Amino acid sequence: MLVNKKIIMRLLQYKNVLSRLKKLGFIKIFSDNIADSSGTTPAQVRKDFSVYGISGSKRGGYNIDELIIELNKILGKDKITSVIVIGAGNLGAALINYKFFEKENIKIIAGFDIDSKKINESAPTPIYHLDKMAEFIKKNNIRIAVITTPHIAAQQITDTLIEAGIKGILNFSPAQIKGPEEVIIQDIHLQTELESLIYFVNAAKKERP
Amino acid sequence: MLVNKKIIMRLLQYKNVLSRLKKLGFIKIFSDNIADSSGTTPAQVRKDFSVYGISGSKRGGYNIDELIIELNKILGKDKITSVIVIGAGNLGAALINYKFFEKENIKIIAGFDIDSKKINESAPTPIYHLDKMAEFIKKNNIRIAVITTPHIAAQQITDTLIEAGIKGILNFSPAQIKGPEEVIIQDIHLQTELESLIYFVNAAKKERP
Repeated sequence: MLVNKKIIMRLLQYKNVLSRLKKLGFIKIFSDNIADSSGTTPAQVRKDFSVYGISGSKRGGYNIDELIIELNKILGKDKITSVIVIGAGNLGAALINYKFFEKENIKIIAGFDIDSKKINESAPTPIYHLDKMAEFIKKNNIRIAVITTPHIAAQQITDTLIEAGIKGILNFSPAQIKGPEEVIIQDIHLQTELESLIYFVNAAKKERP
Repeated sequence: MLVNKKIIMRLLQYKNVLSRLKKLGFIKIFSDNIADSSGTTPAQVRKDFSVYGISGSKRGGYNIDELIIELNKILGKDKITSVIVIGAGNLGAALINYKFFEKENIKIIAGFDIDSKKINESAPTPIYHLDKMAEFIKKNNIRIAVITTPHIAAQQITDTLIEAGIKGILNFSPAQIKGPEEVIIQDIHLQTELESLIYFVNAAKKERP
């Protein structure tokens, strides 16, 4: 992989910030504005843009429409990506209904679960039995999956997903799932995130008298 | 802050892995076992432990009970931390009901929302109107909050939280919220995480013929 995750995460942040500022009526934008709304510095914004050949006017401003077009070209956001969610519990259901995804050309098209009470094939976003997952992935050429299952099920589901053609997994299960090198796995360990926040708050408290 | 987040995130991962292995009947454990289940290397595990003065037996094994006690001492996990969730939409409700937290001495004790349909003061975890939040934080001496509100509400809520005494915020809103230096803010930008995964899967596809 040639590009590192940090710069892409920043470019995505910039793009999301720009979409919001455009809605507020902005036509021209400065690196300071983008930095303020993205938690970075103006110098970093300009550096990231220059890496991709984006330059502003003499006074350092950018036309917001042109900037969004450039970022979408870099980030390849022109077509809709279909995503499935495995596990339709509280978190899975929340992600299936998460409002921000669809605005960004991401469409969660189905959920899967083993619990018959959660299955609802006629819902706006249908929830199917796990048995139908592999076939669904192949038939619809799905490449991205989100796992929100309990720890114990996660690796077996990962194996099935990869076998069926999935190339990228966003893993919310606490399991350390594994796959071949060409499959990209990003973990969001909610428990560990909250625990580390608590740790640092307590540590900061001890430092202060 | 003297300790960096990465080592604490790893120690928390080790501790969570050890809890699960203990339930499976493990008495002795090797750095290889911990590394395999935590997505790191045995050398890294041993290095992290040695930083905190934890050493294994001659053959490199650790007694699992002693190890958990040591890690809990380092991570300060002996008492229950009360947490509140702001925003009781899909994601907020999912986090309020998230099963893993309570096992780890983290208790989500209330949610807050402005939507009267979501307010339920008699639920097992009560959901109160946002107007009651500041008073609740002060009265119960809450220090940790999770934000799951829309972008537009996030900074104002952050200001109110900090004014009321909150010292650590886990922010799921897409907003780049800001606070004074002594308040710790950790962002989980779900949209950006999913977008970056899609970016890298597409980039990997282009690299391969």
